Amino acid sequence: MTSLPKSLTTRLQQYIPALDWLRHYQSKHLFGDITAGIIVTSLLIPQSMAYALLAGLPPHVGLYASIFPAIIYPLLGTSRVLAVGPAAVDSLMVAAAIAKFAPQGSSEYLVLAITLALLVGIIEIGMGALRMGFLVNFLSRSVISGFISGAAIIIGFSQVKHLLGLKIPATESFIELLTLIVSKISEVNWVTLGLGLASMGILLYFNQPLVKQLKRQGWSDQKILPVSKSAPLLVVILGSLLVSIFQWDQGLGIRVVGMVPSGFPPLTIPTFDLQIWRSLLPAALAIALVGYMEGFSGAQAFASKRREKIDPNQELIAFGAANVGAAFSGGYPVTGGVSRSAVSFSAGANTGLASIITGILVAITVMFLTSWFYFLPQTCLAAIIITAVYKLIDFATLKRMWNYDKADAIAWLFTFGAVLGLGVEKGIIFGAMVALSLHLWHTSRPHIAIVGRLGNSEHFRNVLRYEVKTSPQVLAIRVDASLYFANAKYMENFLNREISDRPVVTSILLVCSAVNLIDASALEVLESLIADLRTLGINFYFSEVKGPVMDKLLKIGFVDYAGRDHFFLSTDIAMRELAGI
Amino acid sequence: MTSLPKSLTTRLQQYIPALDWLRHYQSKHLFGDITAGIIVTSLLIPQSMAYALLAGLPPHVGLYASIFPAIIYPLLGTSRVLAVGPAAVDSLMVAAAIAKFAPQGSSEYLVLAITLALLVGIIEIGMGALRMGFLVNFLSRSVISGFISGAAIIIGFSQVKHLLGLKIPATESFIELLTLIVSKISEVNWVTLGLGLASMGILLYFNQPLVKQLKRQGWSDQKILPVSKSAPLLVVILGSLLVSIFQWDQGLGIRVVGMVPSGFPPLTIPTFDLQIWRSLLPAALAIALVGYMEGFSGAQAFASKRREKIDPNQELIAFGAANVGAAFSGGYPVTGGVSRSAVSFSAGANTGLASIITGILVAITVMFLTSWFYFLPQTCLAAIIITAVYKLIDFATLKRMWNYDKADAIAWLFTFGAVLGLGVEKGIIFGAMVALSLHLWHTSRPHIAIVGRLGNSEHFRNVLRYEVKTSPQVLAIRVDASLYFANAKYMENFLNREISDRPVVTSILLVCSAVNLIDASALEVLESLIADLRTLGINFYFSEVKGPVMDKLLKIGFVDYAGRDHFFLSTDIAMRELAGI
Repeated sequence: MTSLPKSLTTRLQQYIPALDWLRHYQSKHLFGDITAGIIVTSLLIPQSMAYALLAGLPPHVGLYASIFPAIIYPLLGTSRVLAVGPAAVDSLMVAAAIAKFAPQGSSEYLVLAITLALLVGIIEIGMGALRMGFLVNFLSRSVISGFISGAAIIIGFSQVKHLLGLKIPATESFIELLTLIVSKISEVNWVTLGLGLASMGILLYFNQPLVKQLKRQGWSDQKILPVSKSAPLLVVILGSLLVSIFQWDQGLGIRVVGMVPSGFPPLTIPTFDLQIWRSLLPAALAIALVGYMEGFSGAQAFASKRREKIDPNQELIAFGAANVGAAFSGGYPVTGGVSRSAVSFSAGANTGLASIITGILVAITVMFLTSWFYFLPQTCLAAIIITAVYKLIDFATLKRMWNYDKADAIAWLFTFGAVLGLGVEKGIIFGAMVALSLHLWHTSRPHIAIVGRLGNSEHFRNVLRYEVKTSPQVLAIRVDASLYFANAKYMENFLNREISDRPVVTSILLVCSAVNLIDASALEVLESLIADLRTLGINFYFSEVKGPVMDKLLKIGFVDYAGRDHFFLSTDIAMRELAGI
Repeated sequence: MTSLPKSLTTRLQQYIPALDWLRHYQSKHLFGDITAGIIVTSLLIPQSMAYALLAGLPPHVGLYASIFPAIIYPLLGTSRVLAVGPAAVDSLMVAAAIAKFAPQGSSEYLVLAITLALLVGIIEIGMGALRMGFLVNFLSRSVISGFISGAAIIIGFSQVKHLLGLKIPATESFIELLTLIVSKISEVNWVTLGLGLASMGILLYFNQPLVKQLKRQGWSDQKILPVSKSAPLLVVILGSLLVSIFQWDQGLGIRVVGMVPSGFPPLTIPTFDLQIWRSLLPAALAIALVGYMEGFSGAQAFASKRREKIDPNQELIAFGAANVGAAFSGGYPVTGGVSRSAVSFSAGANTGLASIITGILVAITVMFLTSWFYFLPQTCLAAIIITAVYKLIDFATLKRMWNYDKADAIAWLFTFGAVLGLGVEKGIIFGAMVALSLHLWHTSRPHIAIVGRLGNSEHFRNVLRYEVKTSPQVLAIRVDASLYFANAKYMENFLNREISDRPVVTSILLVCSAVNLIDASALEVLESLIADLRTLGINFYFSEVKGPVMDKLLKIGFVDYAGRDHFFLSTDIAMRELAGI
């Protein structure tokens, strides 16, 4: 590889970022990578089966989706610790998307799931190639937090039926689900519930109290981690042993995972029926965006701790390739999971090799160990999901936003409510719309201040906030916004109101320090305003017009229209000349 | 009325603005009002019949829609010259909306049209009561201009079949319409075409050359107006005479209006079938918004010439009431027309009485004179529409926007294209979306300048545009935008890039003179940025933070987090302290 001409190597590395760490792999990194690979595997096996069930798929589909994606991502992605595979919110979105077209458990359902993975992959690769990674910036923190909180609640409640041992058909509506659970409350299988609650107890104990205990006993973080993260595996093993020894699956009706096919993942071919593609497209778009958002923010969080550089568009391509890989190996849509990546990071993963090791270990499991899963109780998997997602419910962010910015809090609440009321897909779209509308609403009613000179300085500040000097003849107004179609009329109304209150005003000075843009609509409003004021004998002046704005005003002839000597570099100069202060 | 207590009168006048001019009516205003009423009527009768045909309705429906709306609006509206009745673009939208549900000419079609008027009325009244008149500000000039230009082209081409005497079914698609016309070109009725072209010749001649000629001969504007505006009536009379005398309707197959029912408009009851209401709702919303936009901008244009005050929400209520009136008197959706209002204004209308006179004159026509319309050729009405709408095609605005602001020009082109390609309703929604997206896109990549001191002044300007003094240790950056979710990451990337290029930088100064808002997402980005820079030994400072922004930063504890002494009132003070310059 080193014999290749430099430019070619650089270009190759641009497309396959793994070449960087593969070519310079240091043996000292191996231990961390292997440890992390093993620990993540022990977490991933029960989680991926649980998430597959959440997506309405047989558990082994979750395992299949944990092999090739985990091997493909580290070759193409720019993060070295991101763990790619099935994820909770994505699994819920898959279930919601396919439920409209096929019943859970049917062979069509599986075909639609792998087709969805292919579509998500194509969309992500396409967006990456078109450098559209920036799109994710249009989801605000409030929308993301409200969305994930709402989705976590739906996920949690969707598992309650497994925890209670109830047979309840898949339903999209949160309210309907609650009603069904309440109406069947007399049919609760108490042993199932006991086993589930015991599992949750173990998971919660390992999560916090045990960690603190071991720390007090002087264990190192490096040793605590594998113990604490082995809880899901432990729950799965204990649950399976209990059921198989006491035959609870037959005598007490505890529902188990049952037969899981063994052997290497089969080559699966998604459908290429365009009709089906078109039906799945909206869901695929939503899953691609949400999955990307989730994975990318995970990658970014760990990159900033290691000073790595994450390329948003290369990440899209890597996630897309991982999904295409999932589609052809019997999997379903995947993305980078924040919590598993955190485990990998803490376990000492140095390079993408950790993820590759995970993929290989899962493949070995699928080939030789699936018979062990026969007696695995579904209630244990439900317990794993519930304890994994409850942490995602983020009312703290809501509370903080409420104190800081009501608009953000409102966007959070609307998104949260829409996810619960309308479902995950519509919920996030609705939330994003609300956030954008609130932003536009805000900019359409900008803060406008009448300003005066602060003492003898060159600074001009709001007359309502500071003791400042003003002139009765010259009204100096600072608009704290770009002037564009949605707020130009608002500014005009403000000016007209102030002028009618001040009959002695002969000059208006518009302080443009915060005006970053004047669009064509606002330009028209300004032109007619200037003309109207002229007939009243009032002159219109500008100060502190920014360079890029001035260039355009000059080009279109507005500066000549308003008068070249009506533009001042600073408010200071303008007020000295116009008002003599 | 004067005996009422003052406060009640004032409150009543708020709801019925007409009380103002009714109570103080001066006899000197009467002549102008009567003249304007007569001239507008002579224009309105042929126009309203033509627009009804454009909407796919029998011509008398246009007359019905010109009676009560013309009487109701001046009682409730705040403009004294606006002429309310059928309008071109609205008629096209009515046709597009109903075509999906009933064939033209059927009785269901008519019921749907009056139901649409009721829905539009209810929506407008509701929006007015909820004070939602501001919504129209979110349609930019570019979108409005592109929309009207596209609609004008569709309207013009929809009349070509009448001009050519071709029988072509109503079609929503512009392309399909063109194809049908071309395929039937051999069936053109040449007499129809000749009569239509002659009508257009008369209309165009009266419009401009005749006015100039009369002006040269010393006629006053006051005398020219009734002559020039009588052209449509003249065309209608001449056309009808020719056809009835030479019996062209039988011999030569010229299509005429035929039987028009006579008598006072019947009381019509819209359907209250909720299923139908739901189907018509999207169209009703679009027509309400577009109609309001059209009427309101008309009202505003004339108000500013007379120093009247137009209340956007009262206008919504007045338009809504006019539409409800239309719905119960056999009419269809109406709005304020800019061109007829201009005629009324020029003809000397002083108060709403002019419009009321118009309504009464149309009522008399409908009661006694409809038999005169039997021989009225449809080709003459088509000529009237074409000569009325071609002026709406506004490429001049596109060209100006192209020179000034490409984003506005792109929004124009997209709206125009979408109206032609997708139809009027979807076209305006699509256009509005494009304009908003372009605005958001623009604000998501704000202009960011590195600034330095201008000479020995207190002003700091862009280093790329001015000869300024800077410090190698202190990087002063001015972000020309509010910081919100869509641009916070962009700013962060900019800063990180600049810092990595300048290893000696120890302080960052963020000049916030153009930052009107920092939302919760941007706040998080700033917090993590400050934390990251601290680990690199770089301090983060702020200057010129605006009052409202500072209040919120203080409240949430950000000011303490960043350090109280890290905030400076001015960039001048900050740079003297931090950089010693």
